[in-house]
Amino acid sequence: MSELVGNMLVAQSGGPTAVINASVAGAVSAAWRNAHVFPQDAEGETVGTIYGAQNGILGILNEELIDLSEVHQSVIEGLRYTPAAALGTCRYKIDFTKKPEQAKVDMDRLFAVFQAHDIRYFFYAGGNDSQDTSLKIHQQAIERGYELRVIGIPKTIDNDLPHTDHCPGYGSVIKYCATTVMEVGLDVGSMATDDGSCCVIEVMGRSAGWIAAGTVLARRFAADPPHIILVPEIRYDIDAILARIKESVATFGYCVVVAGEGIKDSEGKEIGADFNQLDDFGHPLLSGAAERLGQIIFGKLGTKTRTVKLGYAQRAAAHYGSATDAAEAFACGEAAVQAAVSGQSGYMVKLVRESSNPYRWSTALHPLAEIANVEHFLPRDWISEDGFLPNEKFIEYARPLIEGETRPPTEGGLPKFVAIEKARIEKKLSPRIA
Amino acid sequence: MSELVGNMLVAQSGGPTAVINASVAGAVSAAWRNAHVFPQDAEGETVGTIYGAQNGILGILNEELIDLSEVHQSVIEGLRYTPAAALGTCRYKIDFTKKPEQAKVDMDRLFAVFQAHDIRYFFYAGGNDSQDTSLKIHQQAIERGYELRVIGIPKTIDNDLPHTDHCPGYGSVIKYCATTVMEVGLDVGSMATDDGSCCVIEVMGRSAGWIAAGTVLARRFAADPPHIILVPEIRYDIDAILARIKESVATFGYCVVVAGEGIKDSEGKEIGADFNQLDDFGHPLLSGAAERLGQIIFGKLGTKTRTVKLGYAQRAAAHYGSATDAAEAFACGEAAVQAAVSGQSGYMVKLVRESSNPYRWSTALHPLAEIANVEHFLPRDWISEDGFLPNEKFIEYARPLIEGETRPPTEGGLPKFVAIEKARIEKKLSPRIA
Repeated sequence: MSELVGNMLVAQSGGPTAVINASVAGAVSAAWRNAHVFPQDAEGETVGTIYGAQNGILGILNEELIDLSEVHQSVIEGLRYTPAAALGTCRYKIDFTKKPEQAKVDMDRLFAVFQAHDIRYFFYAGGNDSQDTSLKIHQQAIERGYELRVIGIPKTIDNDLPHTDHCPGYGSVIKYCATTVMEVGLDVGSMATDDGSCCVIEVMGRSAGWIAAGTVLARRFAADPPHIILVPEIRYDIDAILARIKESVATFGYCVVVAGEGIKDSEGKEIGADFNQLDDFGHPLLSGAAERLGQIIFGKLGTKTRTVKLGYAQRAAAHYGSATDAAEAFACGEAAVQAAVSGQSGYMVKLVRESSNPYRWSTALHPLAEIANVEHFLPRDWISEDGFLPNEKFIEYARPLIEGETRPPTEGGLPKFVAIEKARIEKKLSPRIA
Repeated sequence: MSELVGNMLVAQSGGPTAVINASVAGAVSAAWRNAHVFPQDAEGETVGTIYGAQNGILGILNEELIDLSEVHQSVIEGLRYTPAAALGTCRYKIDFTKKPEQAKVDMDRLFAVFQAHDIRYFFYAGGNDSQDTSLKIHQQAIERGYELRVIGIPKTIDNDLPHTDHCPGYGSVIKYCATTVMEVGLDVGSMATDDGSCCVIEVMGRSAGWIAAGTVLARRFAADPPHIILVPEIRYDIDAILARIKESVATFGYCVVVAGEGIKDSEGKEIGADFNQLDDFGHPLLSGAAERLGQIIFGKLGTKTRTVKLGYAQRAAAHYGSATDAAEAFACGEAAVQAAVSGQSGYMVKLVRESSNPYRWSTALHPLAEIANVEHFLPRDWISEDGFLPNEKFIEYARPLIEGETRPPTEGGLPKFVAIEKARIEKKLSPRIA
């Protein structure tokens, strides 16, 4: 182990989750335990300080850094149950393929900022794109002979990163979505009197069906909702969906359908984007998968259909987050710092499942090069043959991830979350020319 | 007080809430405490039994009654945190104005069922329509000389019943919606980097703005979301809304808008129904207020806008219900039975606010004749002059209603709700001819 004394920088990227802040809390906590590497700023020097970048890579480019050494421990603790990205996030990508010129300029700027603030440790919490950014920074550091340790921290509600058993953020989103499906199911079921009713609940996940599949956990008995789960990995025949809905209404008096936002018809066309109409301003009417499916169900079957579109609410629902997920996210942040202090660079922390029942897990490292830009989809044999419900293999996988509840303290009957005061440190460089 | 020994029947009506079952629990608990009036079925007689009607008034017409005397106390306790209508509900209305013939037939049948099962106490939990039904039944009982005591129990997330300070179900729905707005607000705010983003969250409430207004409780500081709250009581100039959104994005970097489902434009036209287009099946495209507003914002301002439509999820969210609301709902059920046992009939239980700070409340009775079919809207002077935010008067009113959390027990990381076994008692009449 080579000891490298210098400053540490942590940043958040992409769409937030209920637990991405827990990873920052884990990273800062581990840094505090390694005070020999990250000593506090004793004589007004900045060596050994813990920085956060405001709004991810964009904040680094703009030299907008926040001193986290000064943040009170109670705030760091509060990050364990505070949703969204407390440091701010961005979707900015350093893209050497599509924008090589800009990428080169950005990379020069990044290293100028690293140099100016003696950043020697960089931790980036994010999904596929962000792991790619971390890889590029790691490679550039070697190329430029700049001593830097880079470790990626996994984060995505979509659960589509490869090599990790699952992603921090996923457990909380499916806990919330499954709870919602259970509650909405009770509601719709209790309303199903003279005419059968249908409800379509749309969940996120882009082209991956992990979130939609996770709502199967709401089913404790065969008659329980959701009765149908549609995932983007499968192309669906609309008539087959309608037949199944009709069957469910006939059998149970109602039907609850969960639809991933990116579900496709038999021709591979996204159902939620299936409009050839423009609104008053010339934009296509994209009403979403649930809305569109609801129209089709009502139109073809005459069954009254309501829709729910949880949107951002599902990825921010820390008021009922998974305690398992929050603990794992925290551990990923901790493990990233521990790995870097031990001399590692160019890896992402991953979650390793040691046992499903009882659930046991640990963290390990995986080369960023094998993770960047690879998407991991639901295995076909984890879904029933007809494509309408995940099977026991999936349930065994997902069940432990939602155990326990994060219970944020409340004030006036609402959650009391924490915020990091965005007191930026003094800039040393001239402004970036974007 | 005249003692009337006989059977009791409780039923639920209309759209469910997170706490309508708590009212049933309160009614059954009070009945158990009045065993002299409702004695248990000792010698195989049905006199003195507690019945529930399956699916409201429709269940009575169909003689589908459930014996609640046999339900285990743990289930009755569980109803205090179980959402939806455990007895089942309906939207069936006995309408003497529009369908006088059918109403007469229905009324004859109702009293035949009452007579057959010696029902002497009837409790109906519901909103405006259901209080009207209770009133009609009360009047008919007098007319027919059938000794019956009828008490209505208030229930509606819309909070639009008159004379009661507020309605059971309302506190829980605004607690959940305000929590969601707070969480989504953190999410959108942390994503607002280079381009300002907007999010529109649609909530229920039909033509009343109580639910939308309730999300103002998420604002602890002036910069906090929601930045704009649109209520159906006010007609909005679309350009004024757009100007305010633009201002919010310029000031805070983002804008969170809460829209009641029934919001209207300056001509009084519902914004969510503003389509002249038909889908493939000839039905108008009703994408909802949030979806439509999102299209207008993106079209006119070019601001990327996401939408959330909570739908039924908001009224069923018992996993984070208001403990105050659940306690009040329970008390309303109790008070209904207590009033009937004391000889009262033809009233609805109402909630009386004795003090806002500290919050103190009690129950009282109000004549059904003054409640049935009257809608109670947001007072204009509880909303800012520009119509974009509820003011301190509203906040003082709403704040106490969300205090405390119902915390349903969990199993496998999800809420463990209870169900009433729908074991119907033997029918004594020939089937209803509908």
